Amino acid sequence: MRAYNFSAGPAVLPEPVLRQAAAEMLDWHGSGMSVMEMSHRGKEFMGIHAKAEADLRTLLAIPPSHKLLFLQGGAIAENAIIPMNLLGARKGADYVNTGEWSKKSIKEAKKYCTVNVAASAEDANFTYVPPQSRWKLDAGAAFVHCCTNETIGGVEYHWTPDTGDVPLVADMSSHILSRVVDVSKYGVIYGGAQKNIGPAGLTIVIVREDLLDRALPICPSAFHWKEQVEADSMLNTPPTYAIYIAGLVFEWLLAQGGVPAIEKRNVAKAKLLYDALDASAFYVSPVRKEDRSRMNVPFKLRDESLDGAFLKGAEERGMVQLKGHRAVGGMRASIYNAMPVEGVQALVDYLKDFEKQRG
Amino acid sequence: MRAYNFSAGPAVLPEPVLRQAAAEMLDWHGSGMSVMEMSHRGKEFMGIHAKAEADLRTLLAIPPSHKLLFLQGGAIAENAIIPMNLLGARKGADYVNTGEWSKKSIKEAKKYCTVNVAASAEDANFTYVPPQSRWKLDAGAAFVHCCTNETIGGVEYHWTPDTGDVPLVADMSSHILSRVVDVSKYGVIYGGAQKNIGPAGLTIVIVREDLLDRALPICPSAFHWKEQVEADSMLNTPPTYAIYIAGLVFEWLLAQGGVPAIEKRNVAKAKLLYDALDASAFYVSPVRKEDRSRMNVPFKLRDESLDGAFLKGAEERGMVQLKGHRAVGGMRASIYNAMPVEGVQALVDYLKDFEKQRG
Repeated sequence: MRAYNFSAGPAVLPEPVLRQAAAEMLDWHGSGMSVMEMSHRGKEFMGIHAKAEADLRTLLAIPPSHKLLFLQGGAIAENAIIPMNLLGARKGADYVNTGEWSKKSIKEAKKYCTVNVAASAEDANFTYVPPQSRWKLDAGAAFVHCCTNETIGGVEYHWTPDTGDVPLVADMSSHILSRVVDVSKYGVIYGGAQKNIGPAGLTIVIVREDLLDRALPICPSAFHWKEQVEADSMLNTPPTYAIYIAGLVFEWLLAQGGVPAIEKRNVAKAKLLYDALDASAFYVSPVRKEDRSRMNVPFKLRDESLDGAFLKGAEERGMVQLKGHRAVGGMRASIYNAMPVEGVQALVDYLKDFEKQRG
Repeated sequence: MRAYNFSAGPAVLPEPVLRQAAAEMLDWHGSGMSVMEMSHRGKEFMGIHAKAEADLRTLLAIPPSHKLLFLQGGAIAENAIIPMNLLGARKGADYVNTGEWSKKSIKEAKKYCTVNVAASAEDANFTYVPPQSRWKLDAGAAFVHCCTNETIGGVEYHWTPDTGDVPLVADMSSHILSRVVDVSKYGVIYGGAQKNIGPAGLTIVIVREDLLDRALPICPSAFHWKEQVEADSMLNTPPTYAIYIAGLVFEWLLAQGGVPAIEKRNVAKAKLLYDALDASAFYVSPVRKEDRSRMNVPFKLRDESLDGAFLKGAEERGMVQLKGHRAVGGMRASIYNAMPVEGVQALVDYLKDFEKQRG
């Protein structure tokens, strides 16, 4: 039986995708091979790769000004790769600090440049997104970096920053494809695939073409965006099976009506869960209402001594991976695109039942 | 129907591994999740990860002095990561140039240090391994790098270099697990998984513990061996599904009798193919006999105008991906661990039949 899986990543995938992957495992479309076994330069995989790229371009409405790369290493690797690709002759970059993932980006960037923390929500334990009116940007910065959805803290930008001529760089790992985004407003969008796209080990990078000439000489070829653009993401062997699964997820998303349709569903799912949390004094949702993430919903039991019983009861009902990140404790329900509304409803029912029993 | 897949990588996997992966795709061991959907920090995946590590340590008889990492990026990324981790205060490293993969390593290392090419087989178009008596090593080098099996040229070290106190670093991507190796003789062994281990996107690094203190400050955390050792390869989200498949391959290998047993089979498979090539004037095997790779067998038709007909006829018999690498042309049969002897026999039969028809 399939569980309702609230993991923050790697995370739930659409069941039809998994069924198709299982059916095609030994022989993809009569090729006699699993996708895992295909040369990345053979006609079969080249077709899978091109289709996945085209479908993602369609889903995100990526304009021709922006290149799309399928790489490796996840957001943590990319945190180093970004300054290595974007600094050029500049010595500093602006970072907005909204939580654990921002902090990781800042720590890594300091290896390569001066980091100006343009704004920080640390004063309120990272429970909000600092409004742009409070950002102190440096006009000479190589770029402005923000994490537009903090997977651990559960805060999300519901607006697009305006950084003028300085390129805006966004880690969208945990909400990419969950909402309509105007890609043209960003210099770089990046993210690990293992939250809203597919298996861990695939990294998406979307980069405006005019930014491809700024790489430092120390940038490894495998992570050198311009070299990878010229090699069609195949300078090194790409994570072929992860790209195939991501491609199936893209097809599934298109069949759901694309990003505008899934966004509507995500708004409804998030409202269902936050309303239940807000309706009770037994649970606490720490994030400021305007900045709550639709994807990652951290919450606490007011009486933390009940955490163990809560998690055990959830597992008995087939709801798994609800334990919060060790950095913040409590609970976290990640409700990505592939989480059906039935899963959120089951959690809401359980929230009420548990409170009745133990409240 | 399954093809005989001679791809150089990504490459053929054991059929029982693919069958098990298909069967477990929607629900791994009653967890209600695909392995792809599991948090890398959950008890289910932690168990899969630990078992894969332990089995690989057993298969390669990795001594306690050496740490094992499951990372991302493949050998091309690692070519940059190695000098970033090993240079310390030294300014140069020795490289032995045996072909296309050595050249890629050298090109990348030059971003970080002075490269001394200690020996090169370029004088004979990379058809042999320069004997160590001809290596001109620098006693002050940070390390000595060699590629112990050149996937494209098809040359293989059948002996272990002795570099004294200077750490020996080997790219074993395309023959790791195909033969018994004394790991204790190496400072670092690395390789992409997509040839003899599992899906693309997983990189194996085996590093002697005393070498972990030499990283440059510019080394990205995701590729910083010491930080990854301390984080048990989980500083960033590992490529979880690729690790799971690799783990199934390790279990399959152990069931075959481990590396000594598979090596015997590989010796027999290679002999079968090389004997057939040597018995005919219609085909040419360019590599010096003592240095021929057991894994990658490049060969040419003396009349290259027949290449297209040869490949077409092979596909009609269910033998795919025999086309040689674009850098050298001709044909290449990669006969990794998972290629059954029946596949090699089918190729040998075809070599004879094609010669009869067209010779």
